[in-house]
Amino acid sequence: MGKALFISNAAQLITMADHTEQPAKKEAMSHLNLIENGSLLIEDGKVVEVGRDDDMRDKYKDRIQAAEHLDASGKVVTPGLVDPHTHLVHAGTRENEYAMRLQGQSYMDIMSAGGGIHATTRATQQAGHEQLYEESWERLQQFLIHGVTTVEAKSGYGLTLEHELKQLEVAHELQADHPVDIVSTFMGAHAIPMDEKDNPGPFVNRVIDEMIPVVAEKNLAEFNDVFCERGVFTPDQSKRILEAGKKYGLTPKIHADEIEPYEGSELAAEVGAISADHLLKASDKGIREMAAADVVGVLLPGTAFFLMAEFARGRHMIDAGLAVALSTDQNPGSSPTISLPFIMNLGCLKMGMTPEEVMTATTINAAHAIGRADEIGSLEPGKKGDVTIFDVPNHLTLSYKYGMNHVDTVVKDGQVLVAGGQLQ
Amino acid sequence: MGKALFISNAAQLITMADHTEQPAKKEAMSHLNLIENGSLLIEDGKVVEVGRDDDMRDKYKDRIQAAEHLDASGKVVTPGLVDPHTHLVHAGTRENEYAMRLQGQSYMDIMSAGGGIHATTRATQQAGHEQLYEESWERLQQFLIHGVTTVEAKSGYGLTLEHELKQLEVAHELQADHPVDIVSTFMGAHAIPMDEKDNPGPFVNRVIDEMIPVVAEKNLAEFNDVFCERGVFTPDQSKRILEAGKKYGLTPKIHADEIEPYEGSELAAEVGAISADHLLKASDKGIREMAAADVVGVLLPGTAFFLMAEFARGRHMIDAGLAVALSTDQNPGSSPTISLPFIMNLGCLKMGMTPEEVMTATTINAAHAIGRADEIGSLEPGKKGDVTIFDVPNHLTLSYKYGMNHVDTVVKDGQVLVAGGQLQ
Ligand SMILES: [Zn+2]
Ligand SMILES: [Zn+2]
Repeated sequence: MGKALFISNAAQLITMADHTEQPAKKEAMSHLNLIENGSLLIEDGKVVEVGRDDDMRDKYKDRIQAAEHLDASGKVVTPGLVDPHTHLVHAGTRENEYAMRLQGQSYMDIMSAGGGIHATTRATQQAGHEQLYEESWERLQQFLIHGVTTVEAKSGYGLTLEHELKQLEVAHELQADHPVDIVSTFMGAHAIPMDEKDNPGPFVNRVIDEMIPVVAEKNLAEFNDVFCERGVFTPDQSKRILEAGKKYGLTPKIHADEIEPYEGSELAAEVGAISADHLLKASDKGIREMAAADVVGVLLPGTAFFLMAEFARGRHMIDAGLAVALSTDQNPGSSPTISLPFIMNLGCLKMGMTPEEVMTATTINAAHAIGRADEIGSLEPGKKGDVTIFDVPNHLTLSYKYGMNHVDTVVKDGQVLVAGGQLQ
Repeated sequence: MGKALFISNAAQLITMADHTEQPAKKEAMSHLNLIENGSLLIEDGKVVEVGRDDDMRDKYKDRIQAAEHLDASGKVVTPGLVDPHTHLVHAGTRENEYAMRLQGQSYMDIMSAGGGIHATTRATQQAGHEQLYEESWERLQQFLIHGVTTVEAKSGYGLTLEHELKQLEVAHELQADHPVDIVSTFMGAHAIPMDEKDNPGPFVNRVIDEMIPVVAEKNLAEFNDVFCERGVFTPDQSKRILEAGKKYGLTPKIHADEIEPYEGSELAAEVGAISADHLLKASDKGIREMAAADVVGVLLPGTAFFLMAEFARGRHMIDAGLAVALSTDQNPGSSPTISLPFIMNLGCLKMGMTPEEVMTATTINAAHAIGRADEIGSLEPGKKGDVTIFDVPNHLTLSYKYGMNHVDTVVKDGQVLVAGGQLQ
């Protein structure tokens, strides 16, 4: 893991400590456990301790002397950001559809011109392993520049066993080769193949009987996700798919209640999903049930922004006791951005969250949403040395100076990978 | 001006040619005059010619050989972006107010806690020349990183002759010292001093009788701006101030119809303002009159985004024949961002503008809004060698991959000032 690293004297060192046992809810989402003039010692890629600069220098005098030094004076240090919902591995872009949409064409026009999710499915099916690897690698580099050190990545543009495995294998290799950590989710049930729209039963069976067992056997995913929405997968189909995954050790996740209330939230609580994502139209009942069942609500306000839709009720959900996380939803159709810091801005300005809450939602709660809170999401002894340093005097400035990427330095497993905003 | 510069083989070279005579309106706002595989030769800080790469290499063989080369393969080259409305020169930040607002406190709460515009006025009055210079210099560096090569800058946080002159003198020195071009606007009528709220007449007279003549005599501004809004300056007061400026050679600009319809647009047409800015509540009649009078409508969607207000009717205004420009409105109260590329995203996603229209609105139409279309805003022979290069394969991607800064290279007067996204 190389040399030790001492990050010193941050104007604000946001530790996010004391939320590892369970996701932060309600007032706890405002507890950043922030240290002024804070310093951090990393050895062997892991956090040794955090504390006030003078205390740390007293306690670890010799070990600090032996370490590489990184002066964070006047800056804000946070845990490496965690993006808990991306469709990282895919081929191609769809900026033409975006332009059509801005010129007033409907989603149906775009679909009949060969666009929509099926365009990305075609491109991803046709893409070779190497192309997928390279395009996804480039996106991981962009995530790093935007302060993100762990991303969840879903399959779901393959829709056949062969191509779903291809996506998951690329994610697996990237996890081995690229410093950003990747947490893998199988999402065979992302869409119904075009030619089976009228009779989706056999496809659902293939997901359950053919895909899930092989994905599990090959150990290519930890989570099993489904797009539960009218016209895609019904709550019944979704439940069968999620329960089937559980038998093979895949923890449920769910794309729920994005377009209309469809009891996806309720289903998340019922099957014990680790997270339910989107939730633009989640019912009050669904929110209560998820809160009670400790489901993390992963909100994706970039998607609403990009699709010019209404935003999820983030403020209401937090007040109702739901643990909320935020994500880019990075994908070529409904959210092509890679900037999680901009998603934090939207959390504040479009969902009524506070700067403290959006910080919690992109660190420790995001880690909880992907089952990694024991390793990442906070700067506490024994956790990974994953750190983001922002060139702002206080964390409020992150969304006050909105629409800008303030990331200065990114440290992954104790290694400096971004400095002065540039990949090293 | 140093060595010649040859920028070669851009995937898209957006020239914005043929809009110099008058601002682009209606369909003309979609005419980017884009060259694929385009190249550009700059000598003595000025554009010599643009054209297809092979044509340029034939025609200018020897001169290209003598020039520095910049390969723009796979990238998009545009005129240096122009920000036609900023409050660049000011002291301090107000992120605390922003946090208060997100926690549900009203603007009135914030004002009575000593916040609002008067907080910045106090800070700017108290700031020394050097502090103002340094803070503003840092902002200009950020503008450069975001692809902007010319900014308009207003006074208006001084509110006394002494402090208004201080702001304008700082802008004047920055224009001399910093590579970004600054176009100066006097805006003594930005707010009524706190202790004169109930009787603003004498302040209006001071603006007219004391400030304008001195500003004009010292040649410290080209434009004269006023905040025409209920509770600030009435249309009558605004008209007197703008007409007084005209006598001293200051061209009118106006902050119009931001909070409610207040006939600011109509006044802009009547006094022959070069631009009317904000326009969130501009009436149909006002829009028609501005279009007929060739007033440029400068829209500031970042302010609406940050204040969580409704957006100006950009789509409607363009369809109604108004020449539209876009700006950050950079200021510490209502729009702290420095990213004009993000403002382009908002133009598309929040005001119904197309990617072509937002490009026009931040280049040639922005240049028209500050009376500089003869020098900047397009890449045509004889214009300044001000160029922005984006690391995207086509200009649609600039707002498709929203919330990110895609600027790779910035050239000012033929000099490379930003490369690989970093200040050189
Ligand atoms: Zn998704
Ligand atoms: Zn303004």
